[in-house]
Amino acid sequence: MSALAGLLEAIVAEARPQAARGTVARYIPALARVPADRFGIAVVELDGSVHASGDAHERFSIQSIAKLFSVTQALRAIGEGIFLRVGREPSGTAFNSLVQLEVERGIPRNPFLNAGALVVADVLLGAREAAFDELLAFIRERAGSGTIDVDREVLDSERATGFRNAALANFLRSFGNLTHGIDAVLAFYFAQCSIAMNCVELARSALFLANRGVCPRTGERVLTPSQCKRVNALMLTCGTYDAAGDFAYEVGLPAKSGVGGGIVAVIPERLAIAVWSPPLDPKGNSLAGSFALERFTTHTGWSIF
Amino acid sequence: MSALAGLLEAIVAEARPQAARGTVARYIPALARVPADRFGIAVVELDGSVHASGDAHERFSIQSIAKLFSVTQALRAIGEGIFLRVGREPSGTAFNSLVQLEVERGIPRNPFLNAGALVVADVLLGAREAAFDELLAFIRERAGSGTIDVDREVLDSERATGFRNAALANFLRSFGNLTHGIDAVLAFYFAQCSIAMNCVELARSALFLANRGVCPRTGERVLTPSQCKRVNALMLTCGTYDAAGDFAYEVGLPAKSGVGGGIVAVIPERLAIAVWSPPLDPKGNSLAGSFALERFTTHTGWSIF
Amino acid sequence: MSALAGLLEAIVAEARPQAARGTVARYIPALARVPADRFGIAVVELDGSVHASGDAHERFSIQSIAKLFSVTQALRAIGEGIFLRVGREPSGTAFNSLVQLEVERGIPRNPFLNAGALVVADVLLGAREAAFDELLAFIRERAGSGTIDVDREVLDSERATGFRNAALANFLRSFGNLTHGIDAVLAFYFAQCSIAMNCVELARSALFLANRGVCPRTGERVLTPSQCKRVNALMLTCGTYDAAGDFAYEVGLPAKSGVGGGIVAVIPERLAIAVWSPPLDPKGNSLAGSFALERFTTHTGWSIF
Amino acid sequence: MSALAGLLEAIVAEARPQAARGTVARYIPALARVPADRFGIAVVELDGSVHASGDAHERFSIQSIAKLFSVTQALRAIGEGIFLRVGREPSGTAFNSLVQLEVERGIPRNPFLNAGALVVADVLLGAREAAFDELLAFIRERAGSGTIDVDREVLDSERATGFRNAALANFLRSFGNLTHGIDAVLAFYFAQCSIAMNCVELARSALFLANRGVCPRTGERVLTPSQCKRVNALMLTCGTYDAAGDFAYEVGLPAKSGVGGGIVAVIPERLAIAVWSPPLDPKGNSLAGSFALERFTTHTGWSIF
Repeated sequence: MSALAGLLEAIVAEARPQAARGTVARYIPALARVPADRFGIAVVELDGSVHASGDAHERFSIQSIAKLFSVTQALRAIGEGIFLRVGREPSGTAFNSLVQLEVERGIPRNPFLNAGALVVADVLLGAREAAFDELLAFIRERAGSGTIDVDREVLDSERATGFRNAALANFLRSFGNLTHGIDAVLAFYFAQCSIAMNCVELARSALFLANRGVCPRTGERVLTPSQCKRVNALMLTCGTYDAAGDFAYEVGLPAKSGVGGGIVAVIPERLAIAVWSPPLDPKGNSLAGSFALERFTTHTGWSIF
Repeated sequence: MSALAGLLEAIVAEARPQAARGTVARYIPALARVPADRFGIAVVELDGSVHASGDAHERFSIQSIAKLFSVTQALRAIGEGIFLRVGREPSGTAFNSLVQLEVERGIPRNPFLNAGALVVADVLLGAREAAFDELLAFIRERAGSGTIDVDREVLDSERATGFRNAALANFLRSFGNLTHGIDAVLAFYFAQCSIAMNCVELARSALFLANRGVCPRTGERVLTPSQCKRVNALMLTCGTYDAAGDFAYEVGLPAKSGVGGGIVAVIPERLAIAVWSPPLDPKGNSLAGSFALERFTTHTGWSIF
Repeated sequence: MSALAGLLEAIVAEARPQAARGTVARYIPALARVPADRFGIAVVELDGSVHASGDAHERFSIQSIAKLFSVTQALRAIGEGIFLRVGREPSGTAFNSLVQLEVERGIPRNPFLNAGALVVADVLLGAREAAFDELLAFIRERAGSGTIDVDREVLDSERATGFRNAALANFLRSFGNLTHGIDAVLAFYFAQCSIAMNCVELARSALFLANRGVCPRTGERVLTPSQCKRVNALMLTCGTYDAAGDFAYEVGLPAKSGVGGGIVAVIPERLAIAVWSPPLDPKGNSLAGSFALERFTTHTGWSIF
Repeated sequence: MSALAGLLEAIVAEARPQAARGTVARYIPALARVPADRFGIAVVELDGSVHASGDAHERFSIQSIAKLFSVTQALRAIGEGIFLRVGREPSGTAFNSLVQLEVERGIPRNPFLNAGALVVADVLLGAREAAFDELLAFIRERAGSGTIDVDREVLDSERATGFRNAALANFLRSFGNLTHGIDAVLAFYFAQCSIAMNCVELARSALFLANRGVCPRTGERVLTPSQCKRVNALMLTCGTYDAAGDFAYEVGLPAKSGVGGGIVAVIPERLAIAVWSPPLDPKGNSLAGSFALERFTTHTGWSIF
């Protein structure tokens, strides 16, 4: 067993019990049914070597982590122009808040807020032939796994309960910052939230962000070095909801979390790491997952700072 | 001339004209009188070598950059305990806003907001014999310059016009998050804002943050590696007022700015860099200074991401 | 000509030119097309005598004035219970703001805000067989005019541009404070906003509020005296958007305005008065209409204070 | 015993037990010491006849009720001009909130908010020789009682704990909406809050507001009829903190309350009424006092609506 594998084992043992202090997301029934005791962690290095522990091969709903892939696709499609329609500042408010959107006249603070992701969806609908199929194909290609797909049960749940997101979409439209039909934008958004992946797939799919924009598996340039740096900056300042400051302080890595309990993070020029534990802290980030990442950076001394 | 020195020359030439799009801070008369065309930049490497260009040896009012030194002192004095009284999240609002303070019941969002810095001042007044003298001595020691001092004219100006800060102090006191006399806290705060330093001194004084907490000049351990990483995280997420997201996106370095037109930034395990140009952008950061730092990271390819 | 008729003539002459300082509502195309120079005023006394001047017999879109009739219907249907789902405090914010709704967890501040009127619509959909038909019948009965109806062009315009209201409805639903289908609630809401009436009809229809709850034309008890007093209190504190304080200060009568340029007001135990002039002040109330009402109360000395 | 006296007796019996559901103000020690079971009520008619019951002759701290007298004095001194520096809209927020003040750039929403009263104090300091002495003389004259005075113990308590008000004053000053020394403004403000009066004095002193601006006791014209109507409108829309809507709805009278547990209200052309019961509801109004006024208007059928 490699040193890294041993470290992951130790972290699983230490982090798994922390989950008891968190709460599994209940806002959609399909998420509430996920067993709270699942815990997976996986590291994929630039050379492709994989280290995994716990439930690292079980798929879960990636939820907001999908926003990382859609903003990447939007940057590829239209470049910096997306920042005319969405900001890149931390919000200081909850991920689905409407307040700031009103104050700032329909310009979401960043693309990782729900409102911002709806604008990104609108951008992709305008820039890509079959926008969602292309997004899914992009994720499968990055993860090296053709079976990644939408979880239909989660999708139905999202659709049936997505009133807050429908409110955001209508609100954006009232400011003129949504150009496609509200139903089409919501369909795209709910579908991306419902994609299921496992920790190994998730870590592998983010590896281009640790490699100055080039996918090390395929050699494909996904983003320019400058765009890659910028997506990492976005993750660090806005990737973990209204806890980005705490997360940067404790963990010190660019990361993106989802209310399904997943978090993916990168250490530039080294590796990507994904962790999954469903119970969340009050800000909506995986409690034991954040703990595990803090342990990982403390034990290895690897951080961007 | 070293490659770095040549780069700095080029950056000065490119960045200086940008200043015309900014506005010199007018909130205190003493700042409004500073010539708008000053521009200095200095890099100090871990081995002590200095590269400087423009007005890098002229002192200016460091203003909010002082908050970097006082939060360091507070961490040294009482450790993580300071975060019971002040958060570490980006604010999403202006640096002197009272709104968030009211919503969050007297706990400032981070120590780089004015309200947070007042709480830090209160911490230091309780933890240190002669708190301000010790802060000044600490800065002189880090900068290797015994003549660094308060600019009396700026201090008088701060005192005469500091109603907003007096409001914040009284407000914090009403929530019980200030324990010393309001006058004493304000005196400390106004004094630290009025310290004058030049770019070389500023870059040198921040070098411990690029060196895992050890001052390379004296060999003294200022912060533990973990604390050092955390102060850098604070700078990245909260160091440039309500533009931390934009700044991380464009520049990608932990940095702290001041309304006097100075910005100091660090590249871990490499160097510290300071820049000065008085005209500010609408968020209160040196316009040409931010531009210069973006050029620097783009030309060198050095970034934390 | 009666003294009152003479006064109305004089007021028309004085008030009509004021309209030039206002702006006709442009948020829906159908309203933007109304001629800005229309001006009508009508007084109906408890004994049924009518005094009218200007364009008092031309119908216009009553818009938010309809909220006065729907809240009356809701009180008749389920009594005070409606105040479990909507407050009765002035809002301090714009009529279609989402901010306060978020802070107060889906309970609109009062039934005259758009969000509050959507909740009232939901109440009526649950309490009445054919809720909108009954509302229209109620208005026709009060006004003594069987031809009052929805303006189809305005209705189409409302539907085509009502994204902000759709956002509010979805938002309310996300808090569980809407129980019927969003489309049904919006259909009711848009229909009531699109009702067209003239000044005489409007003044006559509000007469029960000047008569302790009894319709003087039919003798029917519409509200109990206590409910009548309460609806008047609601009008005074919340009836003119975020200008209720100014309006009470200047005019001193319970009143309800609409962005179509209409305002209806009552003087208890005397009369009801309606005025119409399309150009609005920045708060959304008819500019010349408010002016005319201020003149009316000043000339007659009639006020509730 | 008159019918009115009998009614007051009955109301005292019914209302006094309600006080148990409220909480005595604790924000200053001197108020927290007042016995919670005190209950007084007094009606003074335009002809001077007095009806009183319970502890109607025991003095208490009038607190914010003083704002009614100071805004009257300001209107007498400089007329409508005060509304260039303070609004007249209900606030929708707590009486000592700083939020709205920041959003609206230092213009308090109305003169009954603490911030608004500080601006009124500043107006009076500029317009009157010995501003506070004149205010006190005015109150004594209206109440017909030369012994009304400041309660020194309350004043000391206000001064020792008034950090929130000091924050407001400094904040106003930072916007330029305070022209006198902060200490002078606060001294005036704390002194007016500390005036002690009893229910009979309070009702009598407000009688000019029920008499179109003329003090019926002295025959002196205090305000023009128009100004009188306007102060009543201000009381109705802003007189009971953030519960003005509820209060208008339940009671239907122009009124001003204070956290000492007093409320004074007027019925134009009839009478003034004052009630005192220290325990407050969550919005800061006397709980049993509001209840008593609701009973009074329901029993008598007297209301402005």
